Amino acid sequence: MDPPSALLFDVFGTCVDWRSSVIREGQALGRRLNLGAVDWAAVADAWRSLYQPGMETVRSGARPWTTLDVLHREALDRVLAEAGLRSVPERDRAEFTLAWHRLDPWPDTVEGLRRLGRRFIVAPNSNGHIALMVNLSRRARLRWDAILGAEIARAYKPEPEVYLRSVEALGLEPPRVMMVAAHNGDLVAAAGCGLQTAFVPRPTEHGPGQTTDLRPEQPVDLVATDLLDLARQLGA
Amino acid sequence: MDPPSALLFDVFGTCVDWRSSVIREGQALGRRLNLGAVDWAAVADAWRSLYQPGMETVRSGARPWTTLDVLHREALDRVLAEAGLRSVPERDRAEFTLAWHRLDPWPDTVEGLRRLGRRFIVAPNSNGHIALMVNLSRRARLRWDAILGAEIARAYKPEPEVYLRSVEALGLEPPRVMMVAAHNGDLVAAAGCGLQTAFVPRPTEHGPGQTTDLRPEQPVDLVATDLLDLARQLGA
Repeated sequence: MDPPSALLFDVFGTCVDWRSSVIREGQALGRRLNLGAVDWAAVADAWRSLYQPGMETVRSGARPWTTLDVLHREALDRVLAEAGLRSVPERDRAEFTLAWHRLDPWPDTVEGLRRLGRRFIVAPNSNGHIALMVNLSRRARLRWDAILGAEIARAYKPEPEVYLRSVEALGLEPPRVMMVAAHNGDLVAAAGCGLQTAFVPRPTEHGPGQTTDLRPEQPVDLVATDLLDLARQLGA
Repeated sequence: MDPPSALLFDVFGTCVDWRSSVIREGQALGRRLNLGAVDWAAVADAWRSLYQPGMETVRSGARPWTTLDVLHREALDRVLAEAGLRSVPERDRAEFTLAWHRLDPWPDTVEGLRRLGRRFIVAPNSNGHIALMVNLSRRARLRWDAILGAEIARAYKPEPEVYLRSVEALGLEPPRVMMVAAHNGDLVAAAGCGLQTAFVPRPTEHGPGQTTDLRPEQPVDLVATDLLDLARQLGA
């Protein structure tokens, strides 16, 4: 394996802990609106369960390019209705939707990216749009060389054009680029486009009972316990 | 004037001193190839004089989206021919074309951007493509929140879509974004799209005899002597 020139990162789950962050934002919303006892973990999980179906409406061509802000808001309205929270006002729904711009990094992420960024070009290759990635990254202090991913391809992972457009934007060939993700499906798609792959398990991304993506389910170039370990293994 | 949320920067001329840097690279090429006495300042100026005509072939629709690496290389071949330097080999032409990825910042740029970036979202809105901006910015230590500009719009400034696409990518409205440039034409186009404008003169961009862009030639929101002064004026 030749060392890569650039590393592309999945963000939701791989770099940031979306579930705990959405629960935190839900709890704050519940206190603000005096909503009483709400299972915010269940709300977070239900919200996330509509993530792939929402993107699928774009992937299938049923609708044109649509950002996660719109998909997240549509999903939130359904989740709140099903949770008996129809009373949440418009303004609070808009604000809660932006919880996805305020996700906290895993403990190793900021320092891991800083070390990796000294040696390699680093960029997100996320389904999050540019504005979301900019807001999230400024708040969480994630430093990137560019924001790549779904919006520049106007397509959602795992569609090949997302990986290929990000690689092309860096002026590189796929074998010079490594995709880093906590999700097997993301790495299968990246490898299919000719990228190198690194699996970084995040065994509590989906909470304490997680049963998926605990280990690589196909050949990958590297497995690292976290981004600091990835930096060590790559000599950064 | 409400303070902006984000600052977009012209790069060639405003953030980096392309002319001195291209002269430096030319001199190194001349030593490497034993080319003897060559007026590298004249080569740099001739090369840059083909910059707008090259982009115009894309703006006019005569050719599809084409990056500056291609336009720079085509222009270089003409400049070398006219300078009697037809002997420069292919490999050295390819390498010299990448001089535009290795431009030095003005003395105030790195610290100015660092200060401005603490308070504002900062991004290039350059005609340089993403790979060029990433390479240039890593080498010069320019820290951005995103790489915006020509490539994501697949159009060249001063076409309105370049400004509007960059603003849209940040999830903002034009009045919340300030374009920072050393060139009147860039700021006229930005103001036409509803952006705020800041003029930062770079009176030696074109060498000691520069007669253009020494001062704003239309109303702008701010004039700053350099990026440190811009940071002071914006309270960053």
